[in-house]
Order: sequence, then structure tokens, then C-alpha cells
Amino acid sequence: MADSTTKPNIDQQVFSFEEGDGKNKKLLGGKGANLCEMTQIGLRVPPGFVISTAACLDYLANPDKGLPSEILEQVRTHMAQIETQTGKQFGGATNPLLVSVRSGAAMSMPGMMDTILNLGLNETTLTGLIAQTQNERFGYDAYRRFIQLFGQVALGLNAKLFDKILDSVKEEAGVKHDVGLSAQHLRSVASMYLDLIQRETGKAFPSDPMEQLEIAIKAVFNSWMGRRAVDYRRQFNITPEQANGTAVNIVAMVFGNLGEDSATGVGFTRYPDTGENRMYGEYLTNAQGEDVVAGIRTPKPIDAMQDEMPGMYQQLVDLRNRLEKHYHEVQDFEFTIEKGHLYCLQTRNAKMNATAMVHTSVEMVREGMITKEASLLRINPDLLEQLLFPHLDPAAKATPLARGLAASPGAAVGHAVFDADRAEKLGRAKQKVILVREETKPEDIHGFFASEGILTARGGKTSHAAVVARGMGKPCVAGAEGINVDIAQRKAFVGNTTISEGDLITLDGTTGDVYLGEVPLKEASFPQELITLLSWADDAAKLKVHANADTPEDSEKAVKFGAQGIGLCRTERMFNGTDRLPIVVEMILAEDASTRQTAIDQLLPIQRADFKGIFIAMGERPVTIRLLDPPIHEFLPSRQQLEEELVHLEHLRATVHGTNILSDALEVLYRTADTHPHAERIADPRLVEEIIEKKTRMLKKVNILQEVNPMLGHRGVRLGITFPEIYSMQIRAIMEAAAECQKAGHKVQPEIMVPQVCTGQELIRVKSIFDRVQQAVEAHYNVQLQIKFGSMLEVVRACIRAGSLAETAEFFSFGTNDLTQATFSFSREDAENKFLPLYHTNGILQHNPFEVLDQSGVGKIMELAVGWATASRPDIKIGICGEHGGHPASIDFCHKIGLSYVSCSGPRVPIARLAAAHAALK
Amino acid sequence: MADSTTKPNIDQQVFSFEEGDGKNKKLLGGKGANLCEMTQIGLRVPPGFVISTAACLDYLANPDKGLPSEILEQVRTHMAQIETQTGKQFGGATNPLLVSVRSGAAMSMPGMMDTILNLGLNETTLTGLIAQTQNERFGYDAYRRFIQLFGQVALGLNAKLFDKILDSVKEEAGVKHDVGLSAQHLRSVASMYLDLIQRETGKAFPSDPMEQLEIAIKAVFNSWMGRRAVDYRRQFNITPEQANGTAVNIVAMVFGNLGEDSATGVGFTRYPDTGENRMYGEYLTNAQGEDVVAGIRTPKPIDAMQDEMPGMYQQLVDLRNRLEKHYHEVQDFEFTIEKGHLYCLQTRNAKMNATAMVHTSVEMVREGMITKEASLLRINPDLLEQLLFPHLDPAAKATPLARGLAASPGAAVGHAVFDADRAEKLGRAKQKVILVREETKPEDIHGFFASEGILTARGGKTSHAAVVARGMGKPCVAGAEGINVDIAQRKAFVGNTTISEGDLITLDGTTGDVYLGEVPLKEASFPQELITLLSWADDAAKLKVHANADTPEDSEKAVKFGAQGIGLCRTERMFNGTDRLPIVVEMILAEDASTRQTAIDQLLPIQRADFKGIFIAMGERPVTIRLLDPPIHEFLPSRQQLEEELVHLEHLRATVHGTNILSDALEVLYRTADTHPHAERIADPRLVEEIIEKKTRMLKKVNILQEVNPMLGHRGVRLGITFPEIYSMQIRAIMEAAAECQKAGHKVQPEIMVPQVCTGQELIRVKSIFDRVQQAVEAHYNVQLQIKFGSMLEVVRACIRAGSLAETAEFFSFGTNDLTQATFSFSREDAENKFLPLYHTNGILQHNPFEVLDQSGVGKIMELAVGWATASRPDIKIGICGEHGGHPASIDFCHKIGLSYVSCSGPRVPIARLAAAHAALK
Repeated sequence: MADSTTKPNIDQQVFSFEEGDGKNKKLLGGKGANLCEMTQIGLRVPPGFVISTAACLDYLANPDKGLPSEILEQVRTHMAQIETQTGKQFGGATNPLLVSVRSGAAMSMPGMMDTILNLGLNETTLTGLIAQTQNERFGYDAYRRFIQLFGQVALGLNAKLFDKILDSVKEEAGVKHDVGLSAQHLRSVASMYLDLIQRETGKAFPSDPMEQLEIAIKAVFNSWMGRRAVDYRRQFNITPEQANGTAVNIVAMVFGNLGEDSATGVGFTRYPDTGENRMYGEYLTNAQGEDVVAGIRTPKPIDAMQDEMPGMYQQLVDLRNRLEKHYHEVQDFEFTIEKGHLYCLQTRNAKMNATAMVHTSVEMVREGMITKEASLLRINPDLLEQLLFPHLDPAAKATPLARGLAASPGAAVGHAVFDADRAEKLGRAKQKVILVREETKPEDIHGFFASEGILTARGGKTSHAAVVARGMGKPCVAGAEGINVDIAQRKAFVGNTTISEGDLITLDGTTGDVYLGEVPLKEASFPQELITLLSWADDAAKLKVHANADTPEDSEKAVKFGAQGIGLCRTERMFNGTDRLPIVVEMILAEDASTRQTAIDQLLPIQRADFKGIFIAMGERPVTIRLLDPPIHEFLPSRQQLEEELVHLEHLRATVHGTNILSDALEVLYRTADTHPHAERIADPRLVEEIIEKKTRMLKKVNILQEVNPMLGHRGVRLGITFPEIYSMQIRAIMEAAAECQKAGHKVQPEIMVPQVCTGQELIRVKSIFDRVQQAVEAHYNVQLQIKFGSMLEVVRACIRAGSLAETAEFFSFGTNDLTQATFSFSREDAENKFLPLYHTNGILQHNPFEVLDQSGVGKIMELAVGWATASRPDIKIGICGEHGGHPASIDFCHKIGLSYVSCSGPRVPIARLAAAHAALK
Repeated sequence: MADSTTKPNIDQQVFSFEEGDGKNKKLLGGKGANLCEMTQIGLRVPPGFVISTAACLDYLANPDKGLPSEILEQVRTHMAQIETQTGKQFGGATNPLLVSVRSGAAMSMPGMMDTILNLGLNETTLTGLIAQTQNERFGYDAYRRFIQLFGQVALGLNAKLFDKILDSVKEEAGVKHDVGLSAQHLRSVASMYLDLIQRETGKAFPSDPMEQLEIAIKAVFNSWMGRRAVDYRRQFNITPEQANGTAVNIVAMVFGNLGEDSATGVGFTRYPDTGENRMYGEYLTNAQGEDVVAGIRTPKPIDAMQDEMPGMYQQLVDLRNRLEKHYHEVQDFEFTIEKGHLYCLQTRNAKMNATAMVHTSVEMVREGMITKEASLLRINPDLLEQLLFPHLDPAAKATPLARGLAASPGAAVGHAVFDADRAEKLGRAKQKVILVREETKPEDIHGFFASEGILTARGGKTSHAAVVARGMGKPCVAGAEGINVDIAQRKAFVGNTTISEGDLITLDGTTGDVYLGEVPLKEASFPQELITLLSWADDAAKLKVHANADTPEDSEKAVKFGAQGIGLCRTERMFNGTDRLPIVVEMILAEDASTRQTAIDQLLPIQRADFKGIFIAMGERPVTIRLLDPPIHEFLPSRQQLEEELVHLEHLRATVHGTNILSDALEVLYRTADTHPHAERIADPRLVEEIIEKKTRMLKKVNILQEVNPMLGHRGVRLGITFPEIYSMQIRAIMEAAAECQKAGHKVQPEIMVPQVCTGQELIRVKSIFDRVQQAVEAHYNVQLQIKFGSMLEVVRACIRAGSLAETAEFFSFGTNDLTQATFSFSREDAENKFLPLYHTNGILQHNPFEVLDQSGVGKIMELAVGWATASRPDIKIGICGEHGGHPASIDFCHKIGLSYVSCSGPRVPIARLAAAHAALK
């Protein structure tokens, strides 16, 4: 029986590098675990030990009580062990042991916690150090640095107080750089520092090394709850569970500045820019790490060591080989050579750009160093973005004129134009243009097609411009509020700078920067190695990856990006071309079924041709076509615009009398009002009357169609049911296109998908149109069509009724954009402007649910729906389209709940393919 | 072993009244089952039999094959049985048997299927009939009637053809009524009818009675798929499963017109108007049912029979007693006396008004005839509406001037006024007013309080006017499109009629009728028997019934209606009073926190006083108060209105110069712009400038606050988080009111409910305000407050996360209005105008989900949420507020999924109490 006075036996909280578990980052922190691991695989690491994160949490639970005596006890034991290993004495007068004290949490938090070097120095040990190194200046320099760091980090004094003293000494000495100070100068700096500390803290600087150590350990622990660390964790969404305190690493100091047989440097086991299999690095002889940072001496390339210190170089090559052999990963390491002894101070997986990551992945597989699985898992899918979009040449170093939101990645150069019609005109003339607008609307869509990139002065990352640009894979900078667009003048103003129509500008949609003039671009590269890597990804993945594409051109691009099909082909995008919009407007304005049918009949061959182009581009891959979705008022100008146009037209009526030049304004006005665009026209009064009449009808219709909540209004299948002739035409166009392709010997795999479905009856209605049209088309072309019929799951009720819907639908596609809106009752456009930013800052929502799929809410509904759907139709194909389909974490979730495919914008397809592989391999 | 040529043994498809199962309405139809039951309990019913609904479906599966021979066989057998029972012969020359052929489905479909009387007549049997009755005229009359009915119903000829012949004979004879025609006239009519049938059908009228019978049976079966029947079933949402064909009833004819010892009549076992326990009825001697319908002779009250045919009267009293004893329900029966023999031809549960139903329910319990449970279950809860709202005196018989939608039940008389301010002014002066508007907006709310009823020219049953009026229990006629409102002239026009401001008008919100002048009203009665009945209902029910109420007055009314608490007290309604709105506007316009706080501080005492009034009215009952919900732009005028007002003000600026009369227009304009309303004011130019400045600021703010989808926008808890000072003020007002009530010795039970919650973090934020304010208020008043904290479940995500929300919330209330919108992705205002009517007609949706809870979609989410919530907090209280809470079928569902209470508008509370009892008893 234990005596009640016996102390409880606490767990081990301090671990020497020889004994700590190199895999237990949670307990030892990343840095500590790494030092243990390096030590244990036989690399020469300076002796040291780790105080665990558990000790940190114990301490922080009651910081007022100070460090528990058990921990202090263990620290003392381990210090004694270092003394044995180094043959030095902590606090010793002749051969003093100095140590560094560093924080190290489980997750890397660069720059969050401070480091103290040279701990253990005092008047006594300093003497020993100087005697030992025969270098007085080195000694005092180390001493004053230690006092300052300790004062700042451990005692919390302001750095400026130290700088002031140093500056005054430099001024007095008449030197500019620290390096110009003599030993005496530094000695007096150290002395003044000690006075400063006495003055500011009311206590003498602790000269007892053990006391220094205790204070330093507590300071590291306390810094875990310091403002910078807390802010960092919030900023990067690190939850309390993931962030469980910091460990403290105590390591014997080694010095690279003890002569020409000493050095310090950093290395990469392979070239971080290209991934090439050659060691890369820099070093300085007789120097400390700080000297490199100070930038006074220029480090030499690592290759130079081959001549300068050939023996050491060989040791370095040996170190590099051992690192890669052990870590199976490119390493970024730090080393110090102290009097001919190479010490490895740190190693970590090298941060590399996408090119290097892809290159090394493929090469390391070929070398047999890693498996294909590992080669996929080591690359963060989002990193591939660098390879998929053009970007500014980093060498160019231009200064941005303005900055907006990075709304769609990639860079573009072109001539500024201020309306979509002009953009289209110039685009046709093969000019490169950038569409610059206050904000964009659906009616600007033809301008998007013609432009290299889009710049708007208003709107967020989810404004129309941003969403459409991302969908098309075109760069977009949105909400560049410093830009003042004056459409009438065809100019934009940024401070004192004017951008006139036709001026060259450059956009960087990856950063949000806007430049005047042309900045050289680097095109997106799609290296052979990426193709190889992604083919491995496809082999590993269970999810297929489809692309969202609305045109034959987009479809061809999608195939190049490796899309295994089209998951979302939006037919309404086809309605917006200049050759179609006037017909669509006619259809909307029609007061009776026969007028409407006439317009629809004109659209049929146009849509059929679109679909044929897409089918041919996609070959045998599935093409999922969504029937008309948006409310039809989106195809009409806004009420405000029409009212303004009518005022303008009334004015024209009064002034135009048979002049034979049609003003620009009139031409624009005419665009949506005429079904037969002419190259030129006579602005005669009759024409003006005609347009006025048409615009008045449009305004009337806009007023009728106006909705309180258009997101929840008369759209999708609701339109398909109230105007069955529209869906009938679209279905016919798809089937005729398929039939004609089949006749011509192409294999095609179209799928027809109904949007906004909320009840099985809706689906049954559309299916009856589908069946009727299929019969007619098969009879007319004498072919057998194999076309799947399915439904979007973007209405909550459709998810809840998925079992019943699956009786009719052969496939489902989650429309998580709308589903998220309905599940949260957030209107995306309103939420992202009004309260979502605050929700994020306040921590109410960890992520914007429109960017990162909300797994516990929206995801739960999806999971339930998948269960109900497969219970009803076990072989049902279920996918996801919309922005979440290209987001790696969301893709992982889709894999988990058993979806068949994800669909995303073309350029994100490679990212999604890699993410799908990750999901399957994790 | 059966020989393979043996006919399969088919089930019995024809049943005599002695053998049919009186409970099996599905097989025998309602009428047939009833005839069987009456026969079997010993009532004298003419002999007859039923051909089952199964036979109907068999026949309809292959109508071209005619009636299966097995059925015909069984019919013949049963006809022979009737011959035995009556001693008459079908087709006999001396004592002919005549029969009636009637349809009868399982569900009552009045007027849907036709009847053929006197079947079996031909030249031979006619002679026998005449000889037997000694009445030639009776014989020919019966004959010509039979030929016509048979021709129309069984042969499908147009009634007009017969009428033409009859009219020509009458003209020739110089008589006006059929009754003036002699036997010879009728004989020639019959003869001409026979020619007509030969001519029109190309075949002679079938003289073989068996052939007549066969044709008649097929005609009844065919009528099941006739257009009228199909339309009826669609109209009343009768599903194919519920509607499984019609039975055919074949009954021996009895005649009430065979002399003064014969009669025909109808009876109710109790008075249908009042429920009084006395037989009610009418009869005619020597007459047939048709004579009563023709209206030539006036029937006598049943009491007269006591003197005229005392023996028969005694038989009738006996019949009545046996009916009630057997059916335990008030009966509505038909009888015929043929030569001193009383036959009961039909009986069914009497249709009675609400007064009579309630009276008989209570009385029959007291008589020991039925149980309390039965007394509750026999009354359709919706029927009570008659007792709960005032209605037009049926004696008045006024002619409506216009008709709109029956948007909120009840009737009202008042002087027409055309704006809310005027309504309020006159209302304060105790005038009764009806608010007449083109359509209403939230800013009209003070006018609603002051008005007896609301009439709008535009908007549906779910327009603002309709929803608010229903909430307040005030009558409303909405969308009366025949009415043209001219606000400027203060007149409304209906065709040639003008309603000027101040004219008396009458509304009937139960029918949608609008009358010029005053139509006498009957006030709502709330008889003692209803109070008794509802107390039984409360005993039987598991669900509590709460009311939605926003003011002390509404709360008092709610208590009178028996509400067991307030389930929804909407604080925003309080923001709309004329004394508050200007402060609310100040709060919204505030550009900085301190200006906003000043406005909020002014609102605090006002809200506190509101809550005190409500708490005192409700006593110890729970009062659930919802914090501010609507987007704040709802408290500002619309952009259009502000733009118009500013144009008007600019005009005023030019004309007003020191005149000391403030125009009406200016006064109205001023209302929302001033925090200190004055009785009179000087319209000086400075004042105008001041208002212009204010309105301009309002317009600017309206533009900033504008939302694309306000339903999904910046509202509810999202406002509470972005402007915590608003929720903080409301919580403080509630808590201070509670504290002051407690100090004054009142027991109170407030509950605070947060709207639009979608994530637990939102709730935690508001809870922290709640806790902070509670501490402060408890300290200040030195009381202990017991206030529950809960959440609306009206956002889909909140339902999905109910388990997590329940960690903070002590109660939930389903807001099924918003939840339905989000689940369907239907914006109610848009859907009900644009596509819901078509969805209903097309059968895509059986019901409007905003009126009838969608159990399989929205209900499924609710059921899941209840499960998750109770798993997380087993004692959690969960209710429902919003319109579904007052709908009986929805209440039944709420009971099934285990809710604790429903909440609905005050006048629907009694309906809900009865429905809650039904739910528990069923």
C-alpha cells in the first residue's frame, strides 16, 4: 500500500534525443520529434532533449505555480547527460556548456514562438568561452546577443530599448554595421544591457544558468497562449484539439564561427525550383546563421565546398543521401560545421513549387525510392493550380496599379474594353481584350467568351463575374474598388491614372493585382510528368472526375485536362450568345403559344448544333446536360436599364430624322430587340419607334416576371412544367444531335438532367416528354438512343425524397451551390456581402460554406440522400457538380459517402483527379 | 380435381340487403352498405340488392366485353328473390315489379352519378301498373319519366331533346306546369319519347325489363369514369386508392303517391340548425320525392303528421329512435309511406352546422348515448370556424359589389379608408374603419390594428395583408381585382360604382365578398357547450395549444380562446407602431454605434411595457418571445416610394413658403421621418428641407440594405450577431419586464427564442448576451429569473444540427413557414403567384405546402430533428408555430412525431384544441 504522503509517480515528461519517439509529434512537437529521429538514425546532431507538450499543458493549467519540481528534476538530469556527452559544464568556467532553447509545437507555426541562443552565459562562463575560442569579440558578441534575446523573449522587454543602446554605441564608435564594433564596444553594450534589465525589471539579470534555463522554459510555454500564437491558430483554423501546447527543445550550442574549419549553411537534397536530382544549398565559412540573415556576407553555393572543404563536402553528400534514404522525401536541412565536425541541426520536408513536386514525385517512383501511392499523397492537390493557369513572369517585377479580389486564378493581358458587345466585336477581330465593368450581369456573357480576362470594380468572390470566370477558367479580378469605371466616357480612373478603351492592361487573378501595360506572362505548363502522375491518380481513385463545360471549346479543353466526362453542361449559357439572345427574348415576350413556338423552333437547330459539337469533342465519355435552369427574367435587361434606355430612346425619337448613321448607343440598344442583326442600319424614325415598342414590351414583361426571391422562384423544372415547350425543344435538340452523331458513326453518351426538382411528380412529367420525344426521334432517324434521365439534387426536399425520385431518375447530381443556400437559408449574394465575413471573423463558421462543403449540415443531407437513393435503386449513379466538386476536402467527403463522380471547372480537373486519388488512398 | 373446362369459381359480387356486410363500404358503396345495415337492424327497407364495386372494376377493365355472365346470373337470382319478397313480377302484366337503379361509391360524391327510377316499365307492365293503381295519369307519368331518365342516363341523349317535346305538348295543351297535363297528354309524350329514342339511337327503346336492367347497370358503371366523376375526384383530391369504383343499388320501387294513405318525406332525428333534441322534417301526402323538388306543393312540417296520420307518426317516432339508438349519431333520413306502410329509403349522418354539432355532442354525452371521445371525434375541427368569427346574417341576402379571395375568415363593417395613417387616426376616434389598399406593406401595420377588416385589390392568400390579417384574426378580402384604388383621389372604383373615403362597406373574409353599405352581422358566439366540449378536448389531448400573439390585447383574446400559452410573440410587430417606427428608423439610419444606441435606448422602455402587458395577460402560462426576425429594410419604405416622395417634396420645396397648413401629403411623408409627432405643424421651408434630408438618407440606406433574396438574407440571428445591441435591448426589455412583474407579485414564465438559427455557434453567442443581461437584471432588481432560452427550427441546417443546437437550447419551435420555403426552394410570395396553382391543377402537388404541412418532405426533416434533439436533451420541449400549427392534419402529424405543443393564431386555438384531441384519440 502506498503511503498517503508518497508523491504520485508522474509520467516521463522530458526525453533525450536518444530516447524520444521520433513519430510522436503530438508529445514532442515537430521539431523535437525530428531531432530525436535524426539522432536515432545516426546523424550527428548536437546533444539535447525535449520537454514534452504535456508538460506545457500541465504548466499552463496553473502558470502561477511555476514549473513543477518533477519537471525541473528531469531537466537537471538531462542537462547532466548533455554535460557528459559534450564534456562541457553548464555554468563551467573553463569549458562551459551553452544551449539553445526553442519552442516546437505539433503543427508547424513558423515565427510564432521565439528562440533563445547561447543560454548559460554569464560573467564566469563568458571568460571560459573566450579562453576556449581565443576570440574575445566572438565571446562578447555572443554575450550581448544572449542578454538581448533573453531580455526580449524571456523577460518581455521591448526590442527598441536594446536597439537604442546599440545605436548609441555605434554612433559613438562611428560605425554603421554591428560588424564594425570591436570587442570592447560589445563588452560595453553587454554591460549597458545588464543595467537596462536591472532598471526595467527591478531585478538583476539572472546569472545562474539553471535559473536562466527555468525562466526560458516558462517563457516558451507562456508564448503558446501569447497573442501572436492565438491569432495564428485562429487565422489558420487550428482547433484546440489539434493545438495541444508546445514542446521545448534544449540543445547544446555548436558554433560555425570558430574559424575557417567552421561553417554554417542550408541545403536541399534536390533542386527546389525544378526538382532536379542534385543537392542545392548555400554556406558561409566561419559564420553563424545570423550572419546569413544580416546579409553582409554573401553565402556561397554548396558546390563551392567541393573545392574549399572537400572532406566536409563528402560528409554533406553522405548526410544528404542518408536523409533521403530515411525520409523518402526531399529534405530541407540546416547544418553547422564546428571545427571540422558536421552537425545536422534540423531537417524537414522541403517546400517546393508544383513543377518540382511533380518532377520529384515521378522521378522518385522511377528511382524506386517511393511508391506511386506515396508519390500522389505527397502533393497537395491545390498546389497544381500553379501549373494549370498562366501566371506573371516572376522576373518581371511590375508594380500593380490597383488591387482587387483574386476571384479566378490565372493571368491575362489585353486591351481594356468597357462593354460586352465591344469585347465581342474586337474578340472576333482576334484582338486580345480584357472586359472592364463596374459589375457584370448575365447579359454580358458573350463578352466573357471573347475576353482574356475580366476586371470589375464591384462585387465579391462570388459575384456574377467571379463565378462565371471561374467556370470558364478565365482570370478575373473582382471588386477592385480603387477603379472608377465611366462607361459613357469609355474610361476608367485609378487615382490620377486613366485607362482609356484600348489601353493594354494585365490582370493577375491569382493575386488580385491589376497592372497598366503588358506584363510578360508564363503560360500554363502541363508537363509530361503531370500527365504521368495523374494517370497514376486515376488508377488509384474511385471517384471519376468530370468537368463542367458548356461549349465544344470548353469540352475540348476538359478532355485535355483529363476529364472523364462532362458532369454539368448548362444549356442556358447557350441562350446568351448574340445570335440566340434575341430569339430567347422573343420566346419570353410571346403572348401566345404559337408565337412562343416560333421562337423555340428557331432555337432548336442552334442548340442541336451546340450539342453535336460537344458530343463529338467528348467522344464516348458521358455528357450530362442540364435543362434550362435560371428564371427567364435573367435573359432580359434589368428594369432600371430598360427605363434608362427608354428615356434615351425618347430623346432619339426627337432628334433622329433619316440620318443614315446608327449611333453606337442605338446599336447597343438594338441588340436584344432584334432577331436579325445587320452589319449596318439606317436610324430612321420607324426603326426607333420599333425599338421603343419592343423595349416597352420588355419592360412590361420584366415587371410581370419580377420576383421577391428569384433564387427560390419560377425557375428550373418549374419553368419546364409551366412552359413544357422549352424543355421539349431542349430534349429534342439533345436527342437529334445524338441521333445525327450516331448516324455519322460517333459513339455518344448523353444524359439529360432536370434542375430544381423537389418532388417525384415533376420528374415524371418531364420524363413523359423525354419518352415521347425519344420515340419520335428514334423513328425519324431510325436509331436506338441510349440516353440516361436524371435529376439534380439541389433542393432540400429532393434530397429527402431521393428514394422516391430514384424510381424515375437513373442518376443524380448534387448541386451543392443551391443546396448550401437552401440548407443555411443564406442567399449567397447577400450573405457574402453582408454577414459571412463577420461570421468568419467571429468563428461562428470555420469556413465559407460556399467554398468548403459544410459536411455536418449539407453533407449530412447528402449522406442521407445517398442512402435513400441507393436503397431505392442500387445501381444509381450519383455525382456532384458545382464549385465544391473541385475542392479537395469536399472531394474527400464525396468519396466517403460513396459518390460515383465529381464535376468541376476544366482547369480544376487535374486538381480534382489528384484529390480523388488522395481520398481513396488515405 | 376440377375439370379444366370448369368455369373458375368467382367470388360473390351481388349481395341482397339481408346478406351484405353493412360495414363494408369499400365493397358495397356507402349507400348499399347502409341499405344492408338498415335492413339487418330491422328497419323496413324496400327489398333490393347491391352489385359490388369489385364488379364495377372488373367490368371497367374490359367494358367492351359487357357485363360478365356470372354477374348477370347473380342479378337474375336476386331479382327473383325480390319478386318473392314483394309478390310482384319483374315484367309482369298484372302485378309488375318496378325497381330503382342507383349508383353508390365508397365515398359520398353527391350528384355525381345519376339515378333511374321505375325501371321495368314497358307497354305490358304499364297496363298492369295502371290497373293496379287505378290511376292512368300516374301510370303514364311514371312511364314518360322513366323513358326520359333512361334515355338520358343510360343511352346518353341530351335532356333538351326531351324538354323540347314536353314543351311543345304543354304549349299545344295550353298549360304551364307539368301537373296541368292529362293522362292522354302524358301518353302522347311517352309515345313521342319512344320515337325520339328510335330516331336518335337507331334502335327501339328496350322493352325487355331485363335488358333495361343490364343497360342501366352498365351505364352506372360507366359513369364512374365519366367526366363529372373524374373531375370531382380530382377536385377533392380523392386518390385512385380511395376511389375504387361504384356499386349499383337495385331496389324495389315504393310509391308515396298511391293515395291519401301514402306520403313521402325527409327527417332529421334532431334539429339540424340548433341541435335541439326534437325530430325535424317535412312530408307530403300522396306525393313522390320529385314533387317536393318541383316546388308546386309546399311540404308540411313533420309535427303536422301527428294530427293527419297519427299512426304513421308513431311509426316515424319509432324509426327515429331506432336510428339514433343504432347509429349513435343524428340521422338525416328519407321515407315513403305506401298505402300505410312506412319504408325507410335512406339514412345518413346528418350534416349540421357548428352550433348544432357542438350542442348535440354535449347533449348526447349527457344522455349517455355517446362517450366524450366520440363526442369530440364526430366534429370536424375546421367546422368550429363558424363559431369563432363574426359572419353575415344569412337573413340579409345582400348582393356583393365585388369579390376577391377569402383571405382571412370573418366579416366586418366599417368606413372605407385608403391609408394606414388615416385608419389609425379614425380608429383612435373610435370609428369603425376598413382599410382599403392596392396592396399592403409592413409599414401599414398600425393601420391593421385600427381597422375592422382589410380589403386589397392585389395579392393572393399569402400576400402581406392576408398573412397579417390571419395572424390578427381580422377579416380580409385580398386580390379583389375588380376594385380600382385611387389613393390620390381617396376613392375606389368598381365598375360604375364609386367608394369614397368614409363610405360604409362590408367584407366577408370567409367568402371573399365585398358589399357596399352595411350588411347586418352575426357576432361570433362562444357558447357554454363549446367551452365544455373543449375542456374535454384538453383532457384527451397530449399536445398543448398555444397562441401566436404580439400585444396584450391579443394575449387576452388568446386566453379567452383557451390558449395554454403564447407560442410565438413577434417582437417586430411592436416595432411598427407609429410611436416606435421613427425610433426604429433612427436606429437603422445610425452611422455609428452611439447614435444607434441612443435609438435603442429609447426603444427599451417601450418594449418593456409591451412585455409587461403580455405577461400580466398570460399569468403563469408560458410566453415564448421571438427576437427580431425580419431584415431591417422592411422597416423602411420601398425605394420606389421614397423616390416618389422625394419628387413630391422637391415640388413642395418650390411652392411652400411659410403657409401654416401642413398638407396631408406632407404629414404622411413626415411620419417615418420624425421622432416626435406633433398634432399640427408649420409647413415652413426649413421643415421641408429637413424632411428631404432625412428621406434622402433613408433612400441611401435602402439602397445599401437592398437584397437579392431577402428571404435568405440578413435577418434573424444574423442581425442579432451583426448588431448585438438590438438583441441585447430586447432581452433586457423581456427580463426587466419579468423582474418588475415578479416584484409586483405576478408569476411569469417568459421564454426567449432566437430566429433563423443555422449553427450552434450563433446560439452560443446570443446565449452569452442572455446570461450577461440576466445577471445584470437579477442584480438590479434583486430577483431570481427563470427564463428559458431556445431556438426556432426554421432553417434546414438547424434541423439537421438539432442535436448540437440542443446543447444550448432548452426548447425548439419549428417555423414551418420558412422551413417549407427552404425545403422546397419555393419563395412563397413568388410560388403562389406563379406556379403553385398550376402545380395543383396538374396534380404535381396534392396540396399547397404552405397551407397543409408536407409530411413526407418537411415533416420528415422535422421527425429527424425531433429524434436528434431528444437524443441530445431528453426533456427538450419542442413545438411548432406558424400557420401549420392551426391546421388539423398538420396537428395530427405534430402529435405523431411527439411535439409538446402547437401554436396558432388566437381564433384558431379552439380548432387546434379539438384537432389535438382528435390526434390523441385516433
